[in-house]
Amino acid sequence: MRILILGGDGYLGWPTALHLSDRGHDVAIGDNFVRRQYDHEMGVESLVPIAPLHTRIKAWHEHTGRLIDTFVADLTDAHATFDMIERFHPDTIIHFAEQRAAPYSMIDREHAVYTQYNNVIGTLNVLYAIKETDPDIHLVKLGTMGEYGTPNIDIEEGWLELSHKGRTDRVLYPKRPGSFYHLSKVHDSHNIEFACRVWGLRATDLNQGVVYGQQTPQTALDDRLATRFDYDAIFGTVLNRFVVQSVLGEPLTIYGEGGQTRGVIDIRDTVECVRLTSEQPADRGEFRVFNQITESFTVTEIAKVVATSYPGEASIENIENPRVEAEAHYYNVVHSGLVELGLTPHQLSETLITSMFDVAERYKHRVDREALLPLVNWRRTVNRVRPAEPQPDWDADWLVSPDR
Amino acid sequence: MRILILGGDGYLGWPTALHLSDRGHDVAIGDNFVRRQYDHEMGVESLVPIAPLHTRIKAWHEHTGRLIDTFVADLTDAHATFDMIERFHPDTIIHFAEQRAAPYSMIDREHAVYTQYNNVIGTLNVLYAIKETDPDIHLVKLGTMGEYGTPNIDIEEGWLELSHKGRTDRVLYPKRPGSFYHLSKVHDSHNIEFACRVWGLRATDLNQGVVYGQQTPQTALDDRLATRFDYDAIFGTVLNRFVVQSVLGEPLTIYGEGGQTRGVIDIRDTVECVRLTSEQPADRGEFRVFNQITESFTVTEIAKVVATSYPGEASIENIENPRVEAEAHYYNVVHSGLVELGLTPHQLSETLITSMFDVAERYKHRVDREALLPLVNWRRTVNRVRPAEPQPDWDADWLVSPDR
Repeated sequence: MRILILGGDGYLGWPTALHLSDRGHDVAIGDNFVRRQYDHEMGVESLVPIAPLHTRIKAWHEHTGRLIDTFVADLTDAHATFDMIERFHPDTIIHFAEQRAAPYSMIDREHAVYTQYNNVIGTLNVLYAIKETDPDIHLVKLGTMGEYGTPNIDIEEGWLELSHKGRTDRVLYPKRPGSFYHLSKVHDSHNIEFACRVWGLRATDLNQGVVYGQQTPQTALDDRLATRFDYDAIFGTVLNRFVVQSVLGEPLTIYGEGGQTRGVIDIRDTVECVRLTSEQPADRGEFRVFNQITESFTVTEIAKVVATSYPGEASIENIENPRVEAEAHYYNVVHSGLVELGLTPHQLSETLITSMFDVAERYKHRVDREALLPLVNWRRTVNRVRPAEPQPDWDADWLVSPDR
Repeated sequence: MRILILGGDGYLGWPTALHLSDRGHDVAIGDNFVRRQYDHEMGVESLVPIAPLHTRIKAWHEHTGRLIDTFVADLTDAHATFDMIERFHPDTIIHFAEQRAAPYSMIDREHAVYTQYNNVIGTLNVLYAIKETDPDIHLVKLGTMGEYGTPNIDIEEGWLELSHKGRTDRVLYPKRPGSFYHLSKVHDSHNIEFACRVWGLRATDLNQGVVYGQQTPQTALDDRLATRFDYDAIFGTVLNRFVVQSVLGEPLTIYGEGGQTRGVIDIRDTVECVRLTSEQPADRGEFRVFNQITESFTVTEIAKVVATSYPGEASIENIENPRVEAEAHYYNVVHSGLVELGLTPHQLSETLITSMFDVAERYKHRVDREALLPLVNWRRTVNRVRPAEPQPDWDADWLVSPDR
C-alpha cells in the first residue's frame, strides 16, 4: 500500500513510518517540523537525541535499502496539503500531525487558539483534499482517550447504543474532555464523522491512551533512528516522566490524589495498531472508532510499578494538581476492536520498564530537572513555561495577579 | 443590567438590542459588519432595506431618548475583543456574532474553514476575555437546534440522563449535525462547557430553531429601525422564503420529500427568550442549555400553512434536495426550560403570516428571483453561488467535473 504519514517526524509518527516501511509498504512522510520548534519555544529537549529527518531517512536506507519519501507541508496551508496528497496519491493517510499536549494548549489564550486552529483547520484541509483527490483514500486519524473524559458509564468505542424513554438509537459517544487540546480532537471527530456521512469518505479514529516506551525493533537498529523521549511537564507522558525521576533519584510526582485512571499502551503496540488499521480499512462512508489502549491503571498504580521495578531507591510524592480533573472516578473502557483486527498486546511488565531505565540512565546527563516542574495551571489563563534559564523579573508584579 | 450584544447589527441581534434597551437595560453593540459583506459577496440583499447601524441608533434615540453604545470589533481579533469587554464591562454578553448559514459553510473549502475559524476562535477569545476581565459575566450564546441533527430519541435540553449497562450518568447530549456551520456550534458548545467546568464561568447556550418573522414592536416603529428579511437560498430561512415565493406567484419549493421536521420560533419570542435568559442568569460554573423553539413542523406542513393562508394562488413543488439529510425521521424536542423562565410563546398563526405577506408585497420589486435557487450542493466541494449577474463561462469545463 501507499501510505502517507502526516506528522511522520514525531514521537510516534517516525516509528510508525519505519514499522510500515519494514512491512513492505511504500511510505511517505509529511511534516512541517513544528514539533522540533516547540522544544525551542519551551526551552526543553528530547532526552534521547534525535537526528534530523533527512539523516533518519538516510540511515533507514543504509540499513534496509528502503526509501521513504518526504513532503514539507503545513496542513493549515491548503495548497501545500492538496499538492502533497495529489502528488503522492496514497491509499491510506495516517494523521499524527496535530499539536498533542494538553498542558501546551492550556498555557494561555494564544496556545489554546493555536492548538484548535492548527488541529481543526489542518484536519478540515485533509478531508477536502481526500474528497477532491480520491474519496477512496482511507483516513486513519489519531484521536485520544482524553476525548471521553471520565464518564460514570463504560466507555464504548466511539459510538453508543442507547435507550431513552423507550426508544433506541446509535449515537456518537458523548464526550467531555479536559483541555483545549483534547477538545480539538473532539471537534475533529465530529468533522470527520460528518465527512464520512455526507461525502462517503472512509475513516478510522484511533482514540489512543497514554503511550509509554521509546524503542521499537526498527528504531533500536541505529542511534540515528531513535525517536523522541519526552520527560518534561508539557510534552512528557506520565510513565516516561516517572522513569526519568527514578533515575535522577527524585520523587515520582503524582498530581493530586493519583486516583486518576488512564488507559495506556506500549509504543510497539501503537505502531502495530496503526498497521492493522491501515491494512484493514473502514468501508466507504464508515466512521470507525477504536479505543487504542491495552490496559488501564491509576496514576498511583503506575508510580508504584515504576518505583518497585527501579533497582535503586524511588519514592512517591503527591503534589498539588495543576489540572482540573476528577481524582477518583469510575473508568471502564471497551477496547476489543483492535484485538479483533489481530493485535496481541504487550503488557506493562517490569522487563520493559527496565529497558526504559537503561535509556534514561544513558542520557541522564541531558536532563533539565526544572523541566519536570508542572508550571501550567489549568485555572490560570497566563502561565510562564520556560523554567530553564535565568529570567528578568520586571514583569513579576503583572504575573502574580490572582485572576489570570 | 449592562448588556453587550455581539453581532448586534444582524437579523436577530438588532431587534434584541432594541428589545433590551426598551426594557431599560444599558445596551452596547459589538459588530464588524461582516454580515453586510456576505450580501456583497453573494450578490444578494435583504428584501427589506436596512439602515446603517449609526442611522439605526440615531433613530432609536429620536424615538425613545435611549442610547446604544457601539464597538467595531472582529472577535477573531483578541485585542479588540478584550478591549471592548474591558471597556464596557457588561453583566451579560449575548453572542450572536457567528457566520450562521449552513449553505454558506458548504460552498467550498474556503467557506467551511472560514466558518469554523470565525465561529470557534471568536468564541474562544470571548471566553478568555470573560475569564480575564470578570468571570462573573454571564455568556448567553446562540446555538442551533441543528447541532442535534435528527436522533431517533427525544432531544433533551443539552444534557442527557442515561443508563448504560446498569450504570447512570448525566452527559452532554450526543450531537450529529448536518453542515460545517452546525458543527462549528457543536465545537463552541464543547468549548464553553469546558470553560464553565474549569474556570467557573456561567453560560447559557440557546439552541435556537428556525426563526420566522421580521417585525418586533420596536423595529416596526420606523423604517430606519427595520431588521433584515433574507429570502435567498443561502441566508433565507424556510418560512420567510415561502412567503416571498407566494407573493411572487412562484411555487413554494420543498427540498426532497419535505418530511424534514424542524423546530421553529417567532422572532418576537426569540428576543423575549434572550431577555428572560439574561435577567435570570446561569449559576457560576453552570453550563445551562435551552432549546429555543416553540413548535415543530415538517417542511411540507410549513409550506401548506403558507400556501393556505396566502390570499392568492400558491402551489407547492418538491425539488431535488441539495442537502444530505434525513427526509423522514423521528423528531420530538423537549423545550420547557424557557417557558419555566416565563416565556409565553406565539403560535405560527395565519395572522402573523399575513403580516409577513404585507412586508413581502411592499418590497417585492426588490426580489432577485435567481437568488431563490439552491445552488449549494452538500455533495460537491466547489459550488458557484452568484446567480444574479451574467458570468463569463471560461471555467465551465472545470466546474462540471462530477467529483468536485
